Amino acid sequence: MTRDVLNYLNDHNEDLMKKWNDFLSIPSVSTDSTHKQNILEAAEFLKSYLSELGFENVTQMETPGHPLIYAEYTQAGTEAPTVLFYGHYDVQPVDPIDQWKSDPFKPEIRDGRLYARGSSDDKGQVFMHLAVFEAFIKTEGKLPINVKVCIEGEEEIGSENLYDILHTKKDLFAADFAVISDSGMVAKNQPTILYGLKGFTGIEITVKGPDHDLHSGMYGGAIKNPIMALTQILASMKNKDEVITVEGFYDDVEPLSDEERKLIKNVQGEDYQTTTGVTETASETGYTAKEHTMARPTFEINGMYGGYQGEGTKTIIPSSATAKITCRLVPGQDPEKIQNLLEKHVYHHAPTGVKVNVKKEKLSAKAYKVEPDHPLIQKAAASYTKAFGKETVYVRMGGSIPVVEWMEAIYDIPIVLLGFGTPEDRIHSPNESFPLDSFKKGMETLVYYWDSLRKK
Amino acid sequence: MTRDVLNYLNDHNEDLMKKWNDFLSIPSVSTDSTHKQNILEAAEFLKSYLSELGFENVTQMETPGHPLIYAEYTQAGTEAPTVLFYGHYDVQPVDPIDQWKSDPFKPEIRDGRLYARGSSDDKGQVFMHLAVFEAFIKTEGKLPINVKVCIEGEEEIGSENLYDILHTKKDLFAADFAVISDSGMVAKNQPTILYGLKGFTGIEITVKGPDHDLHSGMYGGAIKNPIMALTQILASMKNKDEVITVEGFYDDVEPLSDEERKLIKNVQGEDYQTTTGVTETASETGYTAKEHTMARPTFEINGMYGGYQGEGTKTIIPSSATAKITCRLVPGQDPEKIQNLLEKHVYHHAPTGVKVNVKKEKLSAKAYKVEPDHPLIQKAAASYTKAFGKETVYVRMGGSIPVVEWMEAIYDIPIVLLGFGTPEDRIHSPNESFPLDSFKKGMETLVYYWDSLRKK
Repeated sequence: MTRDVLNYLNDHNEDLMKKWNDFLSIPSVSTDSTHKQNILEAAEFLKSYLSELGFENVTQMETPGHPLIYAEYTQAGTEAPTVLFYGHYDVQPVDPIDQWKSDPFKPEIRDGRLYARGSSDDKGQVFMHLAVFEAFIKTEGKLPINVKVCIEGEEEIGSENLYDILHTKKDLFAADFAVISDSGMVAKNQPTILYGLKGFTGIEITVKGPDHDLHSGMYGGAIKNPIMALTQILASMKNKDEVITVEGFYDDVEPLSDEERKLIKNVQGEDYQTTTGVTETASETGYTAKEHTMARPTFEINGMYGGYQGEGTKTIIPSSATAKITCRLVPGQDPEKIQNLLEKHVYHHAPTGVKVNVKKEKLSAKAYKVEPDHPLIQKAAASYTKAFGKETVYVRMGGSIPVVEWMEAIYDIPIVLLGFGTPEDRIHSPNESFPLDSFKKGMETLVYYWDSLRKK
Repeated sequence: MTRDVLNYLNDHNEDLMKKWNDFLSIPSVSTDSTHKQNILEAAEFLKSYLSELGFENVTQMETPGHPLIYAEYTQAGTEAPTVLFYGHYDVQPVDPIDQWKSDPFKPEIRDGRLYARGSSDDKGQVFMHLAVFEAFIKTEGKLPINVKVCIEGEEEIGSENLYDILHTKKDLFAADFAVISDSGMVAKNQPTILYGLKGFTGIEITVKGPDHDLHSGMYGGAIKNPIMALTQILASMKNKDEVITVEGFYDDVEPLSDEERKLIKNVQGEDYQTTTGVTETASETGYTAKEHTMARPTFEINGMYGGYQGEGTKTIIPSSATAKITCRLVPGQDPEKIQNLLEKHVYHHAPTGVKVNVKKEKLSAKAYKVEPDHPLIQKAAASYTKAFGKETVYVRMGGSIPVVEWMEAIYDIPIVLLGFGTPEDRIHSPNESFPLDSFKKGMETLVYYWDSLRKK
């Protein structure tokens, strides 16, 4: 009876919250090598929890980077379906740290939200699954479905080694379908099925000028300024109408159908002023903000630096300047091809007097789309609605989850994206948080979903 | 006899070097408030040295910023001329510190050069004057000229309080002429008289977007990227031909005469590949590198930053971006007017969806030109030639020394720029150094110059 399972979650709320806090307190930042030990602590946490729950073959799979945690549960019986559950235990860096109202790794509850790095992306959502597994096992003695657990530690740095593992251990990870909870809802308490995700690629541009910073009075007028050179290159890549001006960038983009534009129109839009403080949106000419974020490719400068950043002025011509760029891609676009187009554009627009170098980021993924009317999707939507008391909407989103593309490519199984994040979670930013009621209703959704899939 | 004075400098070389090292070992960085104590130590060093030499009214003049050291010497008698000697004891920041081959504040001699921050700009040249004063006093019992010393601690942050002091204490600082050693020669051992300096002004542009860093997948396509907005603004201010495209920027520029172009052509050019590592110069269309650096205005981005600068990638739309800009001005251009033109251009080109703010730097100065055939200049040229054994060349330079403009404005006296730096000194950069033979010949030049001005 799902009733008992739900009661268990309520009755043991305090213990579960404490355990969740322990998980979030581990600063498992994957992009910063100084956190290697914390990554291993987070992996350890998962292994012991899964072992306690009676999962078998709990394994820490080593990689050239950070380990992946595998475990399996087969006691639901051969007639029950097997789900491949994916999540990640690594988190984004916390800088700028001074903008956090509380320690990112000392979870703190304020106004019904739990504040901590990873509370939403993705340690929070991973923990919800584990807690629901616990609830089923403690009340019913077993899970209604068989499970293969795949929780990696490199999602925030591009899941660099995940593909190889999924590919080489294809039989081990084989399942009837996959469930991923690493996404969000269009609005808090608005059940959302993601049927499309964007692809992803990136480059880093470095412009080198003089071999040391130069006095701007002695050399201004003779030596090309690397920062100015870089701004001239970047400004040539996107115009003020938010149209990407890199030749060929849009060539393979699947046009947006009228049906889909209607679908997008029906999705309750986000109140950007509340969530970002920005009063005026900026989108590609001819497309709404919703259309652009959900279904059109983007080009963003994620970071740029060069020269003097300190107090006061320093009258120099800096020796170099760097920009980090990532693009979100839509169905039809090939990440590698886009990377090559970006590189070609940069070199073509590089001014004389400086050395320009383009570094292609390994991180790359194609866009993804799934059929909204698949039974597994429909059951997920029903579970959402039952838990949140609201009709489920179907949307595409701008985020990228490489594992989605890879799972489909390798296993060709249905992938269900069960996301519980909210637009106010500030993932990847200071003061990331997750609503406690989403935590509760999310687990409820999972209980209904697993129940709906048990052999009746 | 100058012979005795020169001998003194040779015989006491070791003591003088030690004393110079003590001066350079004080990290008197004026732009960084954490070095306040070191600034005071440097001021203390000067006061005690001047007192030892028998200067009177040795005074530490307090300012809202860093103190100015005043002292006077009147024992040369009423018939001897009085020189106002200006220099500065503050230095530029040392970052990037990891590029220094030796501690910037532990002077080290390598290949005939003394490496230390300030060794050339300007603690080295200030010390040469004090050492020469010492040599005259210890050998002849007095100086051949009367002196008023004005050594400030805010030159590298725009001499913010110097004008007020010179203006309010006009009578105290009154002199027949001024000597400033805070510049360089066009080439090592090439005596150089600076008869023109550039003016100076600056702004800082800050572009604010969302109130926190945003996930580039969730918000890319809806929210304007502040870094992209800033690059678009900056790229609109100077074109690839190094022509500044800010409306009205060149309106008041005095055209370069054919005579002056000849004069510039005769100046031995700097080997930029040796001094900067750059193989190809970049100058305003229609002007040579020498013409642009010496006699045409410049626009430089000194620093820029926004978003993620750490290891790996961080897929965000950053909340803000900043650029620090300074311009070097030529005769005819008014710093305030230029600042206003820059501000107007930035606001005019600011895209929608972001908040753009322009901060006008206080630091500002008009360009300066002096008559090359003035007797005081001619005697300086002769002293140079005698010491360095080479004809003196007359040049304009791209550097800016606000005090030059102010002294002329307030006192209307001839100003002699006796510079001893070399293009290889790397002032304002890591591994600043000063040649030991320039140190010696420079002091020799000063001995000849003061001697040439004594009442015969």
